[in-house]
This record gives sequence, C-alpha cells and structure tokens, in this order.
Amino acid sequence: MEVEVLQDRLAKALNIVSRVAASTKAGLPILSNVLLRAEENQLTLTATDLNLATVVYVNAKAKKNGTITVPAKLLSEFVSNLPKETVKLFAKDEKLTIAAGKYKSTVNGILADDFPELPKINEKEAATFKISVDIFKEAVNEVIIAASNDTTRPALTGVYFNTFEDALYIAATDGYRLADKKFVEKVTSDIKVIVPTNALQEVIRSINDGMDEIEVLITDAQIRFRMGEVEITSKLIDASFPDYRRLIPEKCNSNIELDKAELIRMTKVAALFARDSGGSIICEAKKDDGTFLITAVASEVGENSSAMEAKIEQDAKVTLNSRYLLDALNSIIEGKIIFSMSGKLDPIKIKNAKSEDYTHIIMPLNS
Amino acid sequence: MEVEVLQDRLAKALNIVSRVAASTKAGLPILSNVLLRAEENQLTLTATDLNLATVVYVNAKAKKNGTITVPAKLLSEFVSNLPKETVKLFAKDEKLTIAAGKYKSTVNGILADDFPELPKINEKEAATFKISVDIFKEAVNEVIIAASNDTTRPALTGVYFNTFEDALYIAATDGYRLADKKFVEKVTSDIKVIVPTNALQEVIRSINDGMDEIEVLITDAQIRFRMGEVEITSKLIDASFPDYRRLIPEKCNSNIELDKAELIRMTKVAALFARDSGGSIICEAKKDDGTFLITAVASEVGENSSAMEAKIEQDAKVTLNSRYLLDALNSIIEGKIIFSMSGKLDPIKIKNAKSEDYTHIIMPLNS
Repeated sequence: MEVEVLQDRLAKALNIVSRVAASTKAGLPILSNVLLRAEENQLTLTATDLNLATVVYVNAKAKKNGTITVPAKLLSEFVSNLPKETVKLFAKDEKLTIAAGKYKSTVNGILADDFPELPKINEKEAATFKISVDIFKEAVNEVIIAASNDTTRPALTGVYFNTFEDALYIAATDGYRLADKKFVEKVTSDIKVIVPTNALQEVIRSINDGMDEIEVLITDAQIRFRMGEVEITSKLIDASFPDYRRLIPEKCNSNIELDKAELIRMTKVAALFARDSGGSIICEAKKDDGTFLITAVASEVGENSSAMEAKIEQDAKVTLNSRYLLDALNSIIEGKIIFSMSGKLDPIKIKNAKSEDYTHIIMPLNS
Repeated sequence: MEVEVLQDRLAKALNIVSRVAASTKAGLPILSNVLLRAEENQLTLTATDLNLATVVYVNAKAKKNGTITVPAKLLSEFVSNLPKETVKLFAKDEKLTIAAGKYKSTVNGILADDFPELPKINEKEAATFKISVDIFKEAVNEVIIAASNDTTRPALTGVYFNTFEDALYIAATDGYRLADKKFVEKVTSDIKVIVPTNALQEVIRSINDGMDEIEVLITDAQIRFRMGEVEITSKLIDASFPDYRRLIPEKCNSNIELDKAELIRMTKVAALFARDSGGSIICEAKKDDGTFLITAVASEVGENSSAMEAKIEQDAKVTLNSRYLLDALNSIIEGKIIFSMSGKLDPIKIKNAKSEDYTHIIMPLNS
C-alpha cells in the first residue's frame, strides 16, 4: 500500500474511527486497530468493536493499492500532531510508515486478513428514510436521557424506533421516566426496532459542519447511518420493548405553562437541599395564590423553597426526583414548557409549549 | 446578623472561599464552613484549612452586626443559582436564612465561636513588596511545574522565594528538573522562605479582572497575599531549600535557538512512541546537517523521528523525559527558546530567547 492524503482530512477521519476502536478493552488486540484500505482515489478507514462499525471514506491518491491494520489511537494522535501537509502512508508486511515533511514514523501493525468481517446489510431489503442532522441531534438528545444503563434489561438500554399512524417515533424508558418524540412525519415501512444508545451517540459525535442529512437503513438485525463520508453500522438489540404508549397519561388535572430557565433554576436550588433525601423535591401548584412552588424535603443541611407566578387550573402536588426533572428540562430546546400533574401517585408529563411532538413522563416518588 | 448584599458580589466571594473550605476532607466539620461576619458596610467571608486562610471583603448593608458559620459549598452553590437581585442574609442561633425574590432557604450552621483562630501576622515586621498580577501569574506558572509532590521531602514541595544580588527570585525543583525565575528586580529585605504551591495556586485562582497588583507580606512563619478584596494567608514550609544555584550550568557546549511551537509538536509526536519506555526521547544536534532531531527510543509500537533546521555550534546528544520537556516548553510564553546541551550526562538548560530572567534545567536520563 502506498497512498497520499491531506493531513487534516486524515486526522478528522482517524478521530472518528479511533473512538470505536479505542473503546475496545481487552478482547482481540486487532479490535483496537484501524483497518486502512487504499484503492484508486480513496482511502477507507474502518474500526469495529463487533457490535458497532464505523467506516470513513477519504479522498486520497493511491499509488499502490493495499491494506493494513495499525493501532487506531496511536495513529490518530500521531497524525493530529503533524503539520498541515500531505501525509504519505506506506505499508510493507506488518509495518506502516507515515511521513510528512521532516516527520517520519514506523508503526507496527497486524495484517488486514485478521480483521473481523464487518456485518453485512442487505440495503435493498432495508427500510430507509432520511432526516436532517439538526432534527436528528435534537430528537435523539431529548429521548436518549430516559434510556436505562441496566444491562439486565437489554430492551431498556436502547432507543425504540417505532411506526405509529404512519409516523416514526423514537422512545426510551428506564422504568422511572419515559421520553417519546415524533422523529419522521411519514414513513412507508412498519419499523419496530431497538437501537443501542451508543450507536446513536456515535452518530451525533461524528456529525460535522459539512453534513446536512442522515440516511438511515434498517433491517431485522442491523441499522446503518450514512452521512457525508461517514457510515456507522450497528447491531440492533434483540428484545421486545414495553408497550409504552399506554403509560402516557392522556389527560392531566393541572396543566401549567412555565418558563424553562426559571424552572431549572428552582429545581437546581432545591436539589442542593435534597441531597441527603436522594434528590426528592416537591412540586406544587396553588390555584388561589397563582403560584408554582418547589420545596426540598427538609433535611440535615436545611430547608428550601422557591416559587414563580403561574396560571393554575387546579391545585396539585407531587414528589419527584430532581435529577430526572433536570434531565428532562435540560434536554428541551424550547424556552416554555407545559408541566402537567394529576394526583400525587400519577406520573407528571412535560411537553414543549409550542409543539405536540415531544412527551416526557416522570414517575412520582412516594412521599 | 442581618445583612443585604448583591447576588453577584456574594457569589464571587463564596466561590473563592469555598475552594479552601471544600478541600477539607474529614477533620473538623467546621472547617468545611465559611465564617460570615457582618459589620456596618461590610460582609467578611473567611475559610481556612488551618494551613491556608482566605478572607474576602464584600460591600454590604448590615442592619444588624453578627456572625455565623455555614457549609461553604452549599451556600456557594445556592447563591450562584439565585437571580441577580439583592440577597438578604439573616442569622439566628445556628440557622442562616437566605432570601432573594421568591427564593428562600434556611441552612443549618455552627456558631462562629467554634471557628478556629486565624493565623496572626505582624504586618509591621513583615518584609513586603508589590508585584503586578500578570507578572505574578506568568512567573509562578513557569516555576511551579518543577515542584515535587513527594511529601517526604517537604522543602521540594514548595516554591523558594530568595533574595540574590538585591533581586528576588523564585525557584522550585523536584530533583529531576529545576526552574528559576527573577521575580522582583529590587527588594530591600533578605528573604529566604519556602511557600506551599497550593497557596500560590489559590492566589492565581482568586485573581480577577479588577485586580492590578498583589501586595505580598512575609514573616518568619507566614506569607500573606493581598489583592483587591481578597486576602490569602498561608503558613510557610519549615525546611531548608537546597543550594540550587550550583546546579545550574553556567556554560553549555551547544546553544540552539528553536521555535517553541515546533519543538512542542516534535516532542509530543515522539512521546507517543516513547510510552512503553517511560517517555524517553533522544534530542540530538547535528552541526554538519544543520538539524535538530528528536527520536523516540524504538519500542513495541514502532519508531519515530522528526527534525527541524537549526544553527548548531557543536554536535550534542542527550536522552530526556518527554513529559519534563513538554512541561518546561508549555510553561514558557515566548515563541523562541534557547536549548542548551553539553555532554550526554549533563543537564540541559532552556531559556527564553529574549530574556535572561527564566532558567529551566532538566536532568538527562541514562541511555
């Protein structure tokens, strides 16, 4: 292999693939390597942890086609420190020589033959849709926070892509809270798959300014995201997602429009005093006073309460985990939200004031 | 105690004192508290870990003089989240009530009587000098990196303030490297004291845009830094500092002017390949080629070399720890440095190309 490529393009590509490779602790040593393949006017970089694979295509001048694998993190750090010049890569047997200006290194690698086969995806049979990168980022960030880390219930560790009344929704829940977002207005296929959160995070991290749209391809066992020069493919989670729609209360007794920034401030302040009670705070709507209150359950450190004016239909009161409330509020971009409560044992519902697309549910704490 | 103070001023002051209080693990619970003292037009905030004490004076309207101590970190986080309004503090017995707009908290504290006495300093007998905050920051940052973390040799964990030929120098060494900086051109007292690095770091952290100058007062056992509304007092380290001047080579065989940014880049790249050899890199000056080279000692991962053009008086070669070299280079603000080598067992010397004030020495590694 002998190939020439611009330093900044190579550095950007290595930065993306080395995240996947670097996350591989223990296991096969070759999984911490990046596979380089030079062919005509292209250098292809691939890394995989066997569940997730990232491929980046870079414009290059291949003088001699070929392949090699080398430690991804080392190569990435090395190339990112090189001056902005043409980088020459030259592979012979298990060694890759990299030269740029007066910099020269030889890295010990492993033959490409030993690199694991990438998951194949039958693109013709896949359900496909396109989505703008901005909507993708916003929607995924709003939903992903509700996903669980508990690997004993694999279904809850992912984001559920599901078709409902011709639209595609994404949803996640850890049993204590639930987030649901309309993702694509109209899709033609019936999609019901659970996507690992790390694949979605990897897509978001790989988005750069040059990208407008993400093409998504879904089969029974795989999902592929294609944007610009980057292609990320992940296994799906093989489990069944709970019937989450029935957990969303259709009507609540008290629906209050609140300023998000002020509500975040009140929650943060109360959370300081709720540390030794596991973050429990009490949210209360008082119709007669026209106020919405947050109170920390009194604790060793002291007590706290704060209030803001609001139009209240009906008195209501609920105890929540302040961290869940902050997560929900911080994920929303809009400045106004609708905070809906019913009884003290009923879940609360948070929606954007300006849109019906997003729903966040938090289960109450016993108090 | 009953006092009114502006939120932003109080938040800034609490941010400074809570760093000292917060660093107190275990020990006396009151040491994690801030002492508040309201008197006439001033609120004084004090925190100490018994070695270091920070006092901040804030303009305020005291309706009733008095004192209390409350958990510093909690109060700091609470006040920093309040809206930019007037904050009212009201102390009764062991409770402090804080109110601002619709926010209200009561924090459980401890009576001020139990707060430890602050170290007294006899200001009339102290050696004093003034220094601009910019010079202070630059000089301390250049020197402090060479100080040791090894508490078994207390003298080396501090920065040595010492008078030499009418000027005040600051120096630090961990036995492997040494940094020396002319701090004040002319002082009238003979100063020879070792200042804990954390006190100097605390001074740098407490500097804000409104401060021009630092007044320094030194007695036998204490040092005090006074800038703007902040006063930091620290115990000195009671130990004797090595006679470091004789460790600085007066003349070197090969003195090479190099571009700092390029040298940092070359060192970083070589360091990637030197990880499994403890960071060993070889610096080499070649007169005939007119090049300065850095090579990583060949290792399992591969090998690396890079070069830059330079005017070389005499061939020289030395093995260094790449981390020490990077620390030294990163601490220097100037763009050009003089890199001086002699034999392979002699220390190297790094100086600013434009000034004689700073000297950094690194001991060679055996190779």
